[in-house]
Amino acid sequence: MAAPSAFLLVTTILVALGAGNVIDAFDPNPLQDFCVADNESKVRVNGVPCKDPATVVPEDFLFVGADKPGGARSERYGYSSLPVRIPGLNTLGVSHARVDVAPGGVFPPHYHPRAAETALLLEGSSVYFGFLDSGNRLFAKVLREGDVFAVPQGLVHFVLNNGSAPAVIYATLTSQSPGMVLLADALFSAAVPLPMELLARTLHTDRKTVEEIRANFEGRSWSSVFSMAGPGSNEPC
Amino acid sequence: MAAPSAFLLVTTILVALGAGNVIDAFDPNPLQDFCVADNESKVRVNGVPCKDPATVVPEDFLFVGADKPGGARSERYGYSSLPVRIPGLNTLGVSHARVDVAPGGVFPPHYHPRAAETALLLEGSSVYFGFLDSGNRLFAKVLREGDVFAVPQGLVHFVLNNGSAPAVIYATLTSQSPGMVLLADALFSAAVPLPMELLARTLHTDRKTVEEIRANFEGRSWSSVFSMAGPGSNEPC
Amino acid sequence: MAAPSAFLLVTTILVALGAGNVIDAFDPNPLQDFCVADNESKVRVNGVPCKDPATVVPEDFLFVGADKPGGARSERYGYSSLPVRIPGLNTLGVSHARVDVAPGGVFPPHYHPRAAETALLLEGSSVYFGFLDSGNRLFAKVLREGDVFAVPQGLVHFVLNNGSAPAVIYATLTSQSPGMVLLADALFSAAVPLPMELLARTLHTDRKTVEEIRANFEGRSWSSVFSMAGPGSNEPC
Amino acid sequence: MAAPSAFLLVTTILVALGAGNVIDAFDPNPLQDFCVADNESKVRVNGVPCKDPATVVPEDFLFVGADKPGGARSERYGYSSLPVRIPGLNTLGVSHARVDVAPGGVFPPHYHPRAAETALLLEGSSVYFGFLDSGNRLFAKVLREGDVFAVPQGLVHFVLNNGSAPAVIYATLTSQSPGMVLLADALFSAAVPLPMELLARTLHTDRKTVEEIRANFEGRSWSSVFSMAGPGSNEPC
Amino acid sequence: MAAPSAFLLVTTILVALGAGNVIDAFDPNPLQDFCVADNESKVRVNGVPCKDPATVVPEDFLFVGADKPGGARSERYGYSSLPVRIPGLNTLGVSHARVDVAPGGVFPPHYHPRAAETALLLEGSSVYFGFLDSGNRLFAKVLREGDVFAVPQGLVHFVLNNGSAPAVIYATLTSQSPGMVLLADALFSAAVPLPMELLARTLHTDRKTVEEIRANFEGRSWSSVFSMAGPGSNEPC
Amino acid sequence: MAAPSAFLLVTTILVALGAGNVIDAFDPNPLQDFCVADNESKVRVNGVPCKDPATVVPEDFLFVGADKPGGARSERYGYSSLPVRIPGLNTLGVSHARVDVAPGGVFPPHYHPRAAETALLLEGSSVYFGFLDSGNRLFAKVLREGDVFAVPQGLVHFVLNNGSAPAVIYATLTSQSPGMVLLADALFSAAVPLPMELLARTLHTDRKTVEEIRANFEGRSWSSVFSMAGPGSNEPC
Repeated sequence: MAAPSAFLLVTTILVALGAGNVIDAFDPNPLQDFCVADNESKVRVNGVPCKDPATVVPEDFLFVGADKPGGARSERYGYSSLPVRIPGLNTLGVSHARVDVAPGGVFPPHYHPRAAETALLLEGSSVYFGFLDSGNRLFAKVLREGDVFAVPQGLVHFVLNNGSAPAVIYATLTSQSPGMVLLADALFSAAVPLPMELLARTLHTDRKTVEEIRANFEGRSWSSVFSMAGPGSNEPC
Repeated sequence: MAAPSAFLLVTTILVALGAGNVIDAFDPNPLQDFCVADNESKVRVNGVPCKDPATVVPEDFLFVGADKPGGARSERYGYSSLPVRIPGLNTLGVSHARVDVAPGGVFPPHYHPRAAETALLLEGSSVYFGFLDSGNRLFAKVLREGDVFAVPQGLVHFVLNNGSAPAVIYATLTSQSPGMVLLADALFSAAVPLPMELLARTLHTDRKTVEEIRANFEGRSWSSVFSMAGPGSNEPC
Repeated sequence: MAAPSAFLLVTTILVALGAGNVIDAFDPNPLQDFCVADNESKVRVNGVPCKDPATVVPEDFLFVGADKPGGARSERYGYSSLPVRIPGLNTLGVSHARVDVAPGGVFPPHYHPRAAETALLLEGSSVYFGFLDSGNRLFAKVLREGDVFAVPQGLVHFVLNNGSAPAVIYATLTSQSPGMVLLADALFSAAVPLPMELLARTLHTDRKTVEEIRANFEGRSWSSVFSMAGPGSNEPC
Repeated sequence: MAAPSAFLLVTTILVALGAGNVIDAFDPNPLQDFCVADNESKVRVNGVPCKDPATVVPEDFLFVGADKPGGARSERYGYSSLPVRIPGLNTLGVSHARVDVAPGGVFPPHYHPRAAETALLLEGSSVYFGFLDSGNRLFAKVLREGDVFAVPQGLVHFVLNNGSAPAVIYATLTSQSPGMVLLADALFSAAVPLPMELLARTLHTDRKTVEEIRANFEGRSWSSVFSMAGPGSNEPC
Repeated sequence: MAAPSAFLLVTTILVALGAGNVIDAFDPNPLQDFCVADNESKVRVNGVPCKDPATVVPEDFLFVGADKPGGARSERYGYSSLPVRIPGLNTLGVSHARVDVAPGGVFPPHYHPRAAETALLLEGSSVYFGFLDSGNRLFAKVLREGDVFAVPQGLVHFVLNNGSAPAVIYATLTSQSPGMVLLADALFSAAVPLPMELLARTLHTDRKTVEEIRANFEGRSWSSVFSMAGPGSNEPC
Repeated sequence: MAAPSAFLLVTTILVALGAGNVIDAFDPNPLQDFCVADNESKVRVNGVPCKDPATVVPEDFLFVGADKPGGARSERYGYSSLPVRIPGLNTLGVSHARVDVAPGGVFPPHYHPRAAETALLLEGSSVYFGFLDSGNRLFAKVLREGDVFAVPQGLVHFVLNNGSAPAVIYATLTSQSPGMVLLADALFSAAVPLPMELLARTLHTDRKTVEEIRANFEGRSWSSVFSMAGPGSNEPC
């Protein structure tokens, strides 16, 4: 029964990140005081169209609930992820997510195609957090409460909660829509599978091993949850 | 005796923000995996030169201590501000600060010339947080724990802690060096004072009132604490 | 009777600057020869949608009338401001305004959230022009005819005409929609007033003084003139 | 004897524009309050290194003398061009030049590889000003005093003073270093000439005609005046 | 009968480049995984609106046919140009074209207002390729098969095939819509001609010579082929 | 004995891409005609410092040898990769590489943290080329000679040569230093290995399987080949 949870989790992450509830150092600059995301608009542009500024209200800049775990959960990996949806972040180049990792749980190796990240450890101890540069050097630290760790744009990073207490992370991404790619899911869980021959050669192993690993990822098709929207709505998800 | 504290406070903020420990949506994009700030370099460029990548260590991406108040304090305003210094944030376009506001305290109206901001209320209740757009419309909310509020680039914002508990805010700014301008200090506390005639006309009042207000700001000269560096060092400040 | 004029003046500035008749070094790059602002469009994006290029005419790139004072006037401050509206400036990142300051008049301390500025003194003498950096250092000069003075992005600046002749300034802003915030108006003239307690603490003064100053700003509500459009029309305003 | 003047003129323009005394909508964003150009620096980067901010003075933001013709002159074309040099414009993305065109004179077809332009006609009448889009459509107007005309990034434009009075133009360019290319000089006046065969085919004419035209451009070698510096010094040139 | 061919050729280039089938280093950053150009949209923005991501197919990222000459041909200049149309390049800042130049043929001096370029010589020998900097210095090489030559943003460049074999070039431009301006066509072939007086003074020659040259350009009016679209369709043109 | 070849190969790719011989749509804009990379400079900035423009020569813009396979080879994967090094590409935001894939060979799943990519198939048939979006949708095509395929910024892509002939690809990347991360190597081949517990949970498998796969990657430590330079030298590597 873990797979559905994992499915839900990744769905949440995709909705939270790929769906654009973040901001980023590499996004275009704003051309007006604000361009609050109009998530009802049928017009599709780079980013999200704006609401009529006369109808903008303070709630367009507010998110409620980052003090508690939420969003989608993965029993299998042992984490949950709550996107911080704020329509007013459209054009501002930043977004946030709250991530909870259970004792012994992991947030597996992944990267954001359009963002750097910083992570504040709100709760937890002995949380192993690291990233790899493009030369495969590992930069990692065991974080304790109050530590902030930075990950440069587009590099692979991960979390392993070695502590006995739940870990709570407040993540900042430098794009309103950073996107997220989980390395193992990209290899083994594409809606249309990657060719067996490609995977076997990529892993320097045989087809049988690839098939065994891939079997563990079954049941999770991504196409139904595909989303690519903007800073999202702050309504209940 | 409040003035020295206020002085210290603003000093801290300047060191924290003006001195460049932040990143931002409007900063240039990175041209390599990382460009860790070399704060010893004598070369001055837009941003900060980089350390030799071969000497970069995991600690260059780490900040320790965001779980406790710190940095400079202002008794007068009732707040303290702790810059989150991470050399690895250079070229990544983002920075952070922890801000504590005592019950009844304020973080007076200010803006960041080069950044938008989000604020997560880690602790506190009844914290009045707002910003003004360039048409002088107020967008404000009473925040409670777990709320996140966003401020568009360059707009005036403030905090008033109406609660009975201390407020703890984790601020994200979309530049590695967002800068900060306090409105009242700009008017009344420049190292070389603004002309009296200008201030009287600006406030639609008489010179005597301007002189009385300005007297309250005395003793704080900014030139000695002027700083304009990059993502700063993560050593004790 | 000064207040209405001041009201008109600020209205003009807001329409001229906030309403987007300027260009800027921080605006996105163009993706076609030109994207002339279609001010009739119902589509709202970051910036302004474009007219059909087949309907673009030379007049879309022309403004007539920068040789004479115009726009809205403030008797109280002693200045008038004329926006240079050119639809063809959309996506080009720059805008202009003509500003006239009467002898003894001021353009009070303000800043542009999304632009740097240069000012050419076309006429006048003994015009005191300055800006404050984020460390509250004053950089100011007495300008004479033919001088050009530069203000970095987002910093507070002001004009005080100490001369006996009218001052005429041609201002360049590095955004098509730089926005403008007057410091004193932000503090005392918001549509929904800032909390009295906040202002008293901000100015290190008592409520009575705040109330007296605020009374001088009365009658000017900004919400009715709120505007956030693009490079504007070049038709009579 | 016109050639030397033309040579001087283009030299001036190159020094003024190519040499980097301008700012632009497409330049990178600033990462500190200011990065005043250090024209003595031996370090070469994209743009210009900065002076120590502690040594920055108000004069770094000032240019004196835009009220009178100056700079290099071309008797042959009938214009002079005065660069507005302001070291403080480094990283701000904009620059200016004053251009004087005698009655009957021209500023021949040219473009700026890194900038859009606006032109304010300070004096003159019947000044024909136009640009061509990349589809060879002409957008042109006869300007009179007080008119402002805009030219999109990188497009060919020109001035022909059909009036009986001198024309005075205040030009704004959206880069600190926009560069300038005169079309006829590119074809006929390169330091190392373009191949005759190329020019004959380009102009759909014979070699003799090309040789006759090229002879008129002789004596002007560009390599000696080549310059590619930043926002320049504001000292006498 | 060469003129019609030349007309077709330039038309092709305009459609290929000005019409936006390229990408560029100066284009805005993407805010989602992809924003495939919706060439049917009636909405006009900076760049091109996107298709619904749910309808995007692999073919949106594919171009077929760069292995053979194609597109519009110019008998007169001796070249043909084939735009590489890929709707998926919208927002990605790059584009390509295949260019064939016959023995003895030229691609006359031109520039791209919004792009740098690299050229790979796929076939040919003794192909003279060069660019001029804004100081009129020539940087040129005789290319042979397998050479790659780079042209900085906005500078004038040209090709002259001195070899006995056809030259095949694969060009990369750093904008999805770089635009193209042919110098001689700008001077002599505008839809509304440039003033004779301007051209005579620009070329330091007499009206008769200008008229003779211009006569050779006759019959090619650009306005009918004016186009300014985005990354284009990949359907047959 | 395949491992050393694989090692060499990845080394080459790292030197070619991570080491910065490319340009990109997301790089900063140029502030001068050119800023040719000075690879001898001891100054480290975002990107690479420039040579004295007076010493720049045509060869700084030229690469020789893209017509033949070269660079580092991987027997194991069956590909070789040749970086196109051109110092003049510094600040221009683009780079290239030639990639040869043997019949049955692969270029395993990877991404570029700072670039989009286009690939032109110069030779070959039945070459399976695809990318995954951040929702794990596969966009793939079987390419034949003359096809061009585009990959959005930061997304995972791969090549599998199913044909009987060698495949030759000319790749364009939208950064002068796009970086490259191979997914399997990031998981199994970091200089300091990722924790076993993390990998087992990431792959939903047991430690024994992880150990078996990792053993196949042994012998390749990345730290010795770490490189993060700019557009590189065009001298023999």
